[in-house]
Amino acid sequence: MRTVKLTIEYDGTAYAGWQSQANARAIQDVLREAIGEMTDESVSLTGASRTDAGVHALAQTAVFKTKTAIPCEGFVKGLNSLLPKDIRIHQAEEEAESFHPIRNAKWKTYHYKLEIGERPSALNRHRIWWVGPRIDLKKMAAAARYLVGKHDFKSFQGAHSEVKTTVRTLRDICFLPGPILEFVGDGFLKQMVRNIVGTLVEIGTGKKQPQEVQKILEAKNRKTAGICAPPQGLYLVSIEY
Amino acid sequence: MRTVKLTIEYDGTAYAGWQSQANARAIQDVLREAIGEMTDESVSLTGASRTDAGVHALAQTAVFKTKTAIPCEGFVKGLNSLLPKDIRIHQAEEEAESFHPIRNAKWKTYHYKLEIGERPSALNRHRIWWVGPRIDLKKMAAAARYLVGKHDFKSFQGAHSEVKTTVRTLRDICFLPGPILEFVGDGFLKQMVRNIVGTLVEIGTGKKQPQEVQKILEAKNRKTAGICAPPQGLYLVSIEY
Repeated sequence: MRTVKLTIEYDGTAYAGWQSQANARAIQDVLREAIGEMTDESVSLTGASRTDAGVHALAQTAVFKTKTAIPCEGFVKGLNSLLPKDIRIHQAEEEAESFHPIRNAKWKTYHYKLEIGERPSALNRHRIWWVGPRIDLKKMAAAARYLVGKHDFKSFQGAHSEVKTTVRTLRDICFLPGPILEFVGDGFLKQMVRNIVGTLVEIGTGKKQPQEVQKILEAKNRKTAGICAPPQGLYLVSIEY
Repeated sequence: MRTVKLTIEYDGTAYAGWQSQANARAIQDVLREAIGEMTDESVSLTGASRTDAGVHALAQTAVFKTKTAIPCEGFVKGLNSLLPKDIRIHQAEEEAESFHPIRNAKWKTYHYKLEIGERPSALNRHRIWWVGPRIDLKKMAAAARYLVGKHDFKSFQGAHSEVKTTVRTLRDICFLPGPILEFVGDGFLKQMVRNIVGTLVEIGTGKKQPQEVQKILEAKNRKTAGICAPPQGLYLVSIEY
């Protein structure tokens, strides 16, 4: 059996997220069907990140096993001809049989795009979170410093999640032009980036103070943190193996 | 009667263009219905540019007359609450009764966005024209110099157009990072920007030589120019009055 790793870009707007589910169109299902059509095999497809409904990816990673001899470049061309245009395969590579897209990931990078202005824009409505005309990015950056490092992020974890530990390491949170908030971490809890962004935006608009983030972390209670930022501003940018 | 000028942003993806037409949903119709709902009047709405199906606008201008006393800011808020999210009103201003959005326009600016890469991107599929992995922007810029100035652009005019003269002045064609091609002119013929971009891309990919543009202008024949670039890369950016 060969192990094939795909690098996938998608516009999450029309999908119920990455993860396969009943009664909704998930990106994982669409991809699995296209691979099945090419290989005549019923493959199992494991993604590196379970992006939520409406969340985008520039480079999601997913792995499947196949007995076929189809070359990797053949998967790129064949899948792109079968897939809808809001899902594109940018690369297919053969990996060692033991390769696992989640366990082998060292660092993941996410971007969250904010729009600051009098009114939300028409063209970016599925690409960005409009947060109003004024926001204090310096206060947000000061608050973000409390979150960088190894912490128990339980206060920033979404409901209905089963994980062994809620401790994660955030290598950095950078404020790029846009503004875009860049998160680099060794792993992320369910809705962790969106819950952090929602909290930082409440700090930027004066509803919370930067130093409150320390107390939120210590509380280990989701109710102490801010709102969950909407999905359309979030992008899975890259995964380092 | 008051004369109200609207500044409108729209994502053209879902529409048959600006101009009202039978059996298709045009942006002009959607806007006119929303104004009708606010004013209880059947208004006539004149736009500055008849953007094609799939073409976007950051700042289209349109004008209507009304007897109501609704303040301009009320039109901004009211229309934005009635309109779909892919059409946004950014400004409403009262103008002199004689104001005409086409005749009073001094300069119009359009952007055309190209994507250069191995494969088209999923996220930009309705925002940009993917032209392949390699294109010679220097040759395109050299060709563009022949077009700047006052010329008869008949060779770059789309079919089924009735205008008194096909002479227009292109103040400049700039190559911005992206690449984005910026066109500033005193007016544009039907599909003129898209026909110029299609021709420049044929020069960038080596199908035509830069100096051929001079002959194309002189021929005054649409068949001598290149293909019509697809609509989704084109943006009406601003109109100077």
